[in-house]
Amino acid sequence: MEVITNGCIVAPKGFKAGTTYCGIKTTKDSLDLGVVFSEYPATGTALFTTNQIYAAPVKLSRKVAQKGRVRAFVVNSGNANACTGEQGYKDAVEMARIAAKCLKISEDEILIASTGIIGRLLPMDKIGGGIKMATASLGNTREHGNDMARAIMTTDTKQKDIAVRLKINNKDVVVGGITKGAGMIAPNLATMLCFMTTDISLPASLLDKCLRNSVESSFNRITIDGHMSTNDTIAIIANGASGVNILASGTELQAFQEGLDYVTGYLAKAIVKDGEGATKFIQIDVIGARSRSDATRIARSIADSPLVKTAINGEDPNWGRIVSAAGYAGVELGESKINLHINDILIFARGMPTQCDLNTLSATMKGNDIKIRLELGLGNCTDTVWTCDLSHEYVTINAEYHT
Amino acid sequence: MEVITNGCIVAPKGFKAGTTYCGIKTTKDSLDLGVVFSEYPATGTALFTTNQIYAAPVKLSRKVAQKGRVRAFVVNSGNANACTGEQGYKDAVEMARIAAKCLKISEDEILIASTGIIGRLLPMDKIGGGIKMATASLGNTREHGNDMARAIMTTDTKQKDIAVRLKINNKDVVVGGITKGAGMIAPNLATMLCFMTTDISLPASLLDKCLRNSVESSFNRITIDGHMSTNDTIAIIANGASGVNILASGTELQAFQEGLDYVTGYLAKAIVKDGEGATKFIQIDVIGARSRSDATRIARSIADSPLVKTAINGEDPNWGRIVSAAGYAGVELGESKINLHINDILIFARGMPTQCDLNTLSATMKGNDIKIRLELGLGNCTDTVWTCDLSHEYVTINAEYHT
Repeated sequence: MEVITNGCIVAPKGFKAGTTYCGIKTTKDSLDLGVVFSEYPATGTALFTTNQIYAAPVKLSRKVAQKGRVRAFVVNSGNANACTGEQGYKDAVEMARIAAKCLKISEDEILIASTGIIGRLLPMDKIGGGIKMATASLGNTREHGNDMARAIMTTDTKQKDIAVRLKINNKDVVVGGITKGAGMIAPNLATMLCFMTTDISLPASLLDKCLRNSVESSFNRITIDGHMSTNDTIAIIANGASGVNILASGTELQAFQEGLDYVTGYLAKAIVKDGEGATKFIQIDVIGARSRSDATRIARSIADSPLVKTAINGEDPNWGRIVSAAGYAGVELGESKINLHINDILIFARGMPTQCDLNTLSATMKGNDIKIRLELGLGNCTDTVWTCDLSHEYVTINAEYHT
Repeated sequence: MEVITNGCIVAPKGFKAGTTYCGIKTTKDSLDLGVVFSEYPATGTALFTTNQIYAAPVKLSRKVAQKGRVRAFVVNSGNANACTGEQGYKDAVEMARIAAKCLKISEDEILIASTGIIGRLLPMDKIGGGIKMATASLGNTREHGNDMARAIMTTDTKQKDIAVRLKINNKDVVVGGITKGAGMIAPNLATMLCFMTTDISLPASLLDKCLRNSVESSFNRITIDGHMSTNDTIAIIANGASGVNILASGTELQAFQEGLDYVTGYLAKAIVKDGEGATKFIQIDVIGARSRSDATRIARSIADSPLVKTAINGEDPNWGRIVSAAGYAGVELGESKINLHINDILIFARGMPTQCDLNTLSATMKGNDIKIRLELGLGNCTDTVWTCDLSHEYVTINAEYHT
């Protein structure tokens, strides 16, 4: 598996991207509209926010994804088109109509996504022109791919993209992806968009199964502030341009799944690393649970505790907050069986703090990567969740942002 | 009902309190050990943390509370005696033993509670002397009551106490209480201690029922950071010194319940107002839910959202964060039926933002009391949760605290 770090979304064969600034965002040196287009007919699927309050483009794109045929992503940043009522839905439909005309494909093959401020109608006069500009500039250079990764950013500070090249049946297959999302990240997706492309060919049902598998162990295992958004979308298009066609489960599908898992895993962690105000990347491994869901609940309880997150921000190995957050996850525990390692140092064993070298441990807390490993001693199940710390910068970003 | 704001825990007849500084805390001008004592035999009950990791005094006091006879509270601050293994439990038993000897009552009538740092053994040499000093100084002046309220404080910035005088059967009945707890406050109790006294006489089973009723709509409706602690205890002693004896349900019991509700409601809100770094007191009313538990889930989802809490810290009426936090509470909603009032101004109606006067609304956000009222339009059930904002000061307190 070869990793590609440049122009990722157009790294698979037969994909182009085009972007523009059309005036949705107020900062002129940024991009706010982008289109990804497959030159060939393709299958596609997507997963969406489970928030009961969901945006107009989510409502529309759900219908498109269900049909399994997708050839283009049309995405704007700066306005989420959420809480915009019937007019908002009409605007999403209109975006698809304009894009279909420009791309000469059916509206039913276009996934629309929006991210940004909620409760304001889209500036359709600008967006109509923007879609025309973006489709007119479609191309498959690295620059086209990189611009597309930037066009979907909002409070993100870094472009987040990756691709991998796999050998399947002696042919090159590429999976590429871009993502955005810094705050409002919670399990089961968040204000987070992720678009992926691949030049393999897969029936929509198999592609959907692969995507769900992959998201379960990547995007559904990250949390920044526990707040799930109205617009989350994770979508993939498979166009078959590599000449590799998979029709059923087997080693070829497994190889593709591994490539996809690499892309989703990398992108999910990239979101956490670029979390609003994040200074530390935290991996929480829960070991020895009776069930995976028990392990997940405990890992998330620790990950979502503001006391744990502020302690790590302060570079303090505060085992008490970690253990007590595990204790209120709603899972029966045996205190005297619990061991806790922070950065591979055993700080809590069989229910009591150890005599470990706190100076050494404190020194490791100054690093950017923090590892929490909680052993429950109850069974053989495990899970991992990734999160970031809670900093002054998080409060500043979110208290100073005004509607 | 007359409200008493001074010496509250000894305001009911037949109660004394004694306090001391014995060296558990490092700050010498503070109190760190206190005893509340009933001069007469009494019934008593208590509720404890549901955290699976619970402190030694909780383990011991659960047994005492189950028997229904309580005559004294013995409380230390500065050390939680949690995650201290078998020795910790022995120390809690020893505290009860020493207090029983000093007070000349049975160990089985003494509730022990501890709050403070976790994972360190109690300094029993100091605590033994402390219990002797505190019991030697027992008295029922206002100063004795006020000192007791201060002796249980940790990161609290304010003494939190209240009492009410009721007329039942033409006699005076008093209910008094003290509480502590600033961070780590979550539903189902938190690092929170609350001790109450009353001079009514009630069978332990009725007293327990009254306490559970009262806590359900007070302490179980507050949240500061969603982190539940290892030591939470809410306890009450009823000694009958008023001469009022209630044996069954009826208007007399109802009068007592109302008095108790006032005390628990006041104390629970006092905890939120003194939340770590809190600058705003937030009341969240959810109206028109299909069930009370639906209303509770939504109110808590809003209350625990760091994005909502930071927005209010920034005095921004960010309805989008409130509505989207409601959307991920796991309750089915109809977006087009939802109305949201912030500080009595309708900002969101039938799924879309209104044309309300944002300048007026923004001006109201500068106040210390913020009211969020979310109408779901689905049924007749309601619930209320109280919380506070998330400030830079919260991050400072919790990132700079070192184990």
